[in-house]
Amino acid sequence: MNPQNQNRRAPSADEIIALLDGICQPLAAARAPLHEAAGRVLREPVCAPEDQPPFDRSAMDGFAIRLDDANLEFKIVDEIRAGDWKPRELQIGEAVQISTGGALPGDGLQVVMKENVRVAGEILTVVERDSNRCIRFRGEDARAGQVLVESGTTLTPGALALLASVGHAQPMVTRLPRVLNLATGNEIVPPEQTPQTGQIRDSNSVLVRAFLKHWQVKLEQRRMPEDESAVRAALGEVWSSAFRRSEETPMPPEGGTPNPITDTDLLLVSGGASVGEHDFTRRLLEHFGFEILVCKTALRPGRPLIVARRGNQIAFGLPGNPLAHFVCLNLFVRATLEKFSGRAAENIFQPGTLAAKLESGRNARETFWPARGEMQNGEMKLTPLRWSSSGDLTALALANSLIRVKAESSDLAAGAAVEFVPTI
Amino acid sequence: MNPQNQNRRAPSADEIIALLDGICQPLAAARAPLHEAAGRVLREPVCAPEDQPPFDRSAMDGFAIRLDDANLEFKIVDEIRAGDWKPRELQIGEAVQISTGGALPGDGLQVVMKENVRVAGEILTVVERDSNRCIRFRGEDARAGQVLVESGTTLTPGALALLASVGHAQPMVTRLPRVLNLATGNEIVPPEQTPQTGQIRDSNSVLVRAFLKHWQVKLEQRRMPEDESAVRAALGEVWSSAFRRSEETPMPPEGGTPNPITDTDLLLVSGGASVGEHDFTRRLLEHFGFEILVCKTALRPGRPLIVARRGNQIAFGLPGNPLAHFVCLNLFVRATLEKFSGRAAENIFQPGTLAAKLESGRNARETFWPARGEMQNGEMKLTPLRWSSSGDLTALALANSLIRVKAESSDLAAGAAVEFVPTI
Repeated sequence: MNPQNQNRRAPSADEIIALLDGICQPLAAARAPLHEAAGRVLREPVCAPEDQPPFDRSAMDGFAIRLDDANLEFKIVDEIRAGDWKPRELQIGEAVQISTGGALPGDGLQVVMKENVRVAGEILTVVERDSNRCIRFRGEDARAGQVLVESGTTLTPGALALLASVGHAQPMVTRLPRVLNLATGNEIVPPEQTPQTGQIRDSNSVLVRAFLKHWQVKLEQRRMPEDESAVRAALGEVWSSAFRRSEETPMPPEGGTPNPITDTDLLLVSGGASVGEHDFTRRLLEHFGFEILVCKTALRPGRPLIVARRGNQIAFGLPGNPLAHFVCLNLFVRATLEKFSGRAAENIFQPGTLAAKLESGRNARETFWPARGEMQNGEMKLTPLRWSSSGDLTALALANSLIRVKAESSDLAAGAAVEFVPTI
Repeated sequence: MNPQNQNRRAPSADEIIALLDGICQPLAAARAPLHEAAGRVLREPVCAPEDQPPFDRSAMDGFAIRLDDANLEFKIVDEIRAGDWKPRELQIGEAVQISTGGALPGDGLQVVMKENVRVAGEILTVVERDSNRCIRFRGEDARAGQVLVESGTTLTPGALALLASVGHAQPMVTRLPRVLNLATGNEIVPPEQTPQTGQIRDSNSVLVRAFLKHWQVKLEQRRMPEDESAVRAALGEVWSSAFRRSEETPMPPEGGTPNPITDTDLLLVSGGASVGEHDFTRRLLEHFGFEILVCKTALRPGRPLIVARRGNQIAFGLPGNPLAHFVCLNLFVRATLEKFSGRAAENIFQPGTLAAKLESGRNARETFWPARGEMQNGEMKLTPLRWSSSGDLTALALANSLIRVKAESSDLAAGAAVEFVPTI
């Protein structure tokens, strides 16, 4: 894409997602303890270090006897609890009491469930005996050396439990992304502050922070006026304070000039991406050596979006309007973070059905319409939410999806098949 | 349910979920800052304190002129940026340059987009003018006093942004649950430690911790042998150190005996819930005054499950086997935490289709079978995972669902319609 060519056709959502897929790289991998690895992507295959289970274990509370022992009465000669290791060769007529999870004392045995015996002193009488040996045999789940978890797997609670069970307590996972979010605008005040006429409260910082929680990013946020020198100074301050605290952060090269955003994987500039003369995101990004890849899109909302990169760093100039923010986060920032995470790319668009008419009006741009989706009999039914402008936040109270309305399409009737994105 | 009656039919999954729905209460509400409220449930309706937007705002970068002014040429008399408040009565032939988001200086105006004009010095020539006023009018999104977010709404990033935009910076939300998890068992060692024969690594603590992350609980975990006096002492230590740190925690009544689990909303005892004589969870819970409601279920895996309560406190004795743990967490602990959260109950079972044969064998108990589900054309296709015993963790690397296999059903063919639970 050549951003210099102002006449170039503005890219579609699909084109921008494909662009990001092409330029974003998975972040480096690093070892992390299990409790910090939840939700992250494993970057190495994990093998069983020993057979699983590592020894023959009783599956029940009961009594171990020889499989070839046809007696009905036995002498109880020992007791094995879970955690014990008491190898012995059982004789004909002998039984060992054993707990669930207890290590069988030898081979060729069977466990008879507690419920199927009678005990009087040290004499055991088997009341019912079937062919079930009630043993979890060594290696029946996995053999030593077998791959248990493939590289690229997202570490769910279950996958983490499996890693714990084989002692893989420091898995190699994708490092967490470092994100810097600047909310710019002369009109914004913090949410706690009462705005004067002409001012509005900054909601985008709250949106961005809650959205990014999904990826456990290391986030720094700053609210600042649209003033280039102030922003450059603030970035310097961020650099020297925030990310340098992190052990993972490489220091700048010896004698090199500290660069405010060197340590940022993703820079999100909220606001300031329309065509007005106070909009300075583009100049700011260019000043810091970013290459502008997109400066206008074919989306509604979200037209004045900037996408830029510098090496492996990605920057977005997100349109200040809240709904446009929401759309660009859920389509493009998400695609970037997913690619950073090392997860295989998935199509985020899913099929659904309109639960009510969608009165979008005919529009030359592809539209992403906020909606509330509910699963009904395995089908996603989407109710379009009232939406008066891209500054209208009221729909966001209920929105859990964005319906894709194709460019130039008319109003869509209830029951129409649509594509949607589940939102975060 | 009368647990004393050992002959009583063991309850099904649906019956236990219904039981929990009946006995669990939403936890108390408390105010939290927006960044701590993400994912939690709003416990008050939030109204617009003022009209939204609170003033007429320009939707574009452009020039404000009088709507009744038919001129094509205008004199630019002022400039309004976002954040400015410069009320004035515009005269015929006058224009004011205005930025996106800027406050209109008065009523009866129209904004002409920058793209549709030419500017020479202070003279503005309108090249194209249509009926679009390019103004977001005061109150067009919501009127002062209108409910914007209903009580009971889960605070998504979008809902939080809406709260921020109206200055509701300390919403009333359900407080976070306090959970105490004891991993018991004489055979378990920490994941980092190499087990001796007879011992296994504790994976359940890792599973529980990662699972509970979904609800942002305040978690305390202890690993301990199945020894009643040790456990009682440890619980005393937990009480005096952990939860008393929390400001939210009420102190014990004056002169009252400190009770180890008074401050716990949910007590999870991992392991020790089968019928063996070393299994002491039931005695432990009874000692602390819990009423045992369930001590055996009709599930596979997950038969030796204990459900107990004391006032608003809920306790589970979770079967030690990892897959049984996984099933009980995803069905019952989840139902408890969802009810605690204040969210409206939802049916967690969804319809799907088998992508491959499920060889469950005929079983007298309802079975929850680990599976990998993928959306295909809006339909969930479920591939059953290999599962050799309830101690087998290998399926958990890939599992994202549990297929419900009805009691006494035979093997299910590929393509069969099934119910499943998406797992956490």
